[in-house]
Amino acid sequence: MGPHPAVAAIRLAVRRVLHDILTELNCVTTSGIPERAAAGVPAADSARERPQPPLVLVACSGGADSMALASALAFEAPRLGVRAGGVTVDHGLQAGSDLRAEEVVLRLRELGLDPVESAAVTVGRTGGPEAAARDARYAALDAAALRHGAAAVLLGHTRDDQAETVLLGLARGSGIRSLSGMAAVSGAGGRYRRPFLEVDRQTARKACMVQALPVWDDPHNVDPAYTRSRLRHEGLPALEKALGKGVVEALARTAQLSRDDADALDAWARQAEAGVRDATGQLECAKLYALPPAVRRRILRRAAIDAGAPAGALFARHIEEVDRLITGWRGQGAINLPGKVVARRQGGRLVIRQG
Amino acid sequence: MGPHPAVAAIRLAVRRVLHDILTELNCVTTSGIPERAAAGVPAADSARERPQPPLVLVACSGGADSMALASALAFEAPRLGVRAGGVTVDHGLQAGSDLRAEEVVLRLRELGLDPVESAAVTVGRTGGPEAAARDARYAALDAAALRHGAAAVLLGHTRDDQAETVLLGLARGSGIRSLSGMAAVSGAGGRYRRPFLEVDRQTARKACMVQALPVWDDPHNVDPAYTRSRLRHEGLPALEKALGKGVVEALARTAQLSRDDADALDAWARQAEAGVRDATGQLECAKLYALPPAVRRRILRRAAIDAGAPAGALFARHIEEVDRLITGWRGQGAINLPGKVVARRQGGRLVIRQG
Repeated sequence: MGPHPAVAAIRLAVRRVLHDILTELNCVTTSGIPERAAAGVPAADSARERPQPPLVLVACSGGADSMALASALAFEAPRLGVRAGGVTVDHGLQAGSDLRAEEVVLRLRELGLDPVESAAVTVGRTGGPEAAARDARYAALDAAALRHGAAAVLLGHTRDDQAETVLLGLARGSGIRSLSGMAAVSGAGGRYRRPFLEVDRQTARKACMVQALPVWDDPHNVDPAYTRSRLRHEGLPALEKALGKGVVEALARTAQLSRDDADALDAWARQAEAGVRDATGQLECAKLYALPPAVRRRILRRAAIDAGAPAGALFARHIEEVDRLITGWRGQGAINLPGKVVARRQGGRLVIRQG
Repeated sequence: MGPHPAVAAIRLAVRRVLHDILTELNCVTTSGIPERAAAGVPAADSARERPQPPLVLVACSGGADSMALASALAFEAPRLGVRAGGVTVDHGLQAGSDLRAEEVVLRLRELGLDPVESAAVTVGRTGGPEAAARDARYAALDAAALRHGAAAVLLGHTRDDQAETVLLGLARGSGIRSLSGMAAVSGAGGRYRRPFLEVDRQTARKACMVQALPVWDDPHNVDPAYTRSRLRHEGLPALEKALGKGVVEALARTAQLSRDDADALDAWARQAEAGVRDATGQLECAKLYALPPAVRRRILRRAAIDAGAPAGALFARHIEEVDRLITGWRGQGAINLPGKVVARRQGGRLVIRQG
């Protein structure tokens, strides 16, 4: 009798990602270790030829999603000649969070992960409580990955998290890039992997249950002070009630399609950009005008960012206003953009610069 | 003292669209009538030089949105040398709907519209109750526009309707085209215009109130049996509660951005398609493989539709499966698509055809 379907699902998801990681390591290194390890061939007994097998860390909060992920990594990694470790981040935002972190460390060790560590961080205030916690968390995970020489860090984001992220992006109204949710592979050198983006939260929870893994429910996840929590417990259920049960899946598919579309259009804009600059590198309005609006606006956005406008503060309405210097020219004045960047039309050229 | 802000807003929206229509008529005809009419110059008293001024119809249900639209058209049209008429469609779905339609006709006449007519339709069942009603309605409006030689038909869809349409598209999970909502200009020759896509429902309602226009609230709009009604009264309010008040505006902006992006990618795919066919017109897998996924999938979708697959039944997952014949080839068999269309890989070519 095989494992419970939920356990089989989470293991399969992790196995696929470990395969990807090993394939990429084989492509970029010449050690050949992962290949031999995967085939069960012991490394030769020589210090020079005995580099460590690759290490994959799991970022684990102790919640159901990341505990399921840790359990699947613990199961799959040895079978593929991979070392499995874990990191839990103590955000220091709740009383006793240090004890909680130590508990997670113990549980990860019980699963057979090694190394396992707890990383205490100080959460700032930049960008609101959720963004600040996220920034601190990724900085700690980056540091842990570097310290241990990890090939990858697995994150437990599920399809439900992805759906929520798409809706959060939708609320910004800033275009399809913000609808593309979280990437399956992200970070420097593709460090972060999200094996569960097509696994739903219920499956992860079920997998913990049938494996008798205790899980911890972060009170932040049900705190209506957090946008994501309100979305999870009120917004999405109401949408599902109105639109039917497939909403989460549809949102996750929208993320993937939007990401591919945004990538293609960004590539087009990069390629087209050279063709719309004159000999001195200035943007020519007539050539910009001839481009499809979707491509032109991406070039304008890039030019504004290159001139110093902070990407996060640059909204669609800013770019629309700059675009009207091209498409609706009636002698209007300079457009002020975030980061003290100014866009103006001068002699058939679009000049975007700071100050 | 000028008109109430809500009235000013709806009139401005209509004036802009009438300007667009007149500009386009001037571009495509040589009669010059709209130009002269707009300038208040009377036409010369000769039958040859006295073609009728252009006619713009408003489609009016008697609800607040389309009554506001009718009132703004009645006000603006004479000032721009445009004749204003109206059509109301009797869907025959509720007892007394014929009397209601006659009432709307009277109200439109009271606003000074001429011609005004009621068109009774028979709603079928294809595609569900909402789609069937819509199909019957547009067929009646098309017929009325042709019968009266109308230059355009104005529709009262507001920014709130647009937001709902985006969410309905999102629920299909079929990519950015379905997120692009309703177009400001659509139909054969750009017949349909939606002046209120950036006007919110509340403004339309307010404009009716301050103009003492009686409005009719369609019970279908609050009937939870209709997806759109559930979305309007439960889904969207819950999303706004979770994400903040800007959700409707963000969804409407997403529609516009997605439409431009989808148009650009469709254009790219059309252009790229010629380059991936061999001398006999067959799709070459190697060349398809080299394209960005977003462009490749659009070519595959078009090929499936050209082969006879009904666009409405062709989902993202179908195209993904066909795409795996290109990107994940491991000798898999033919893929069955809707409309008895079959996709298979043969000798490095992708063959998509019926039967």
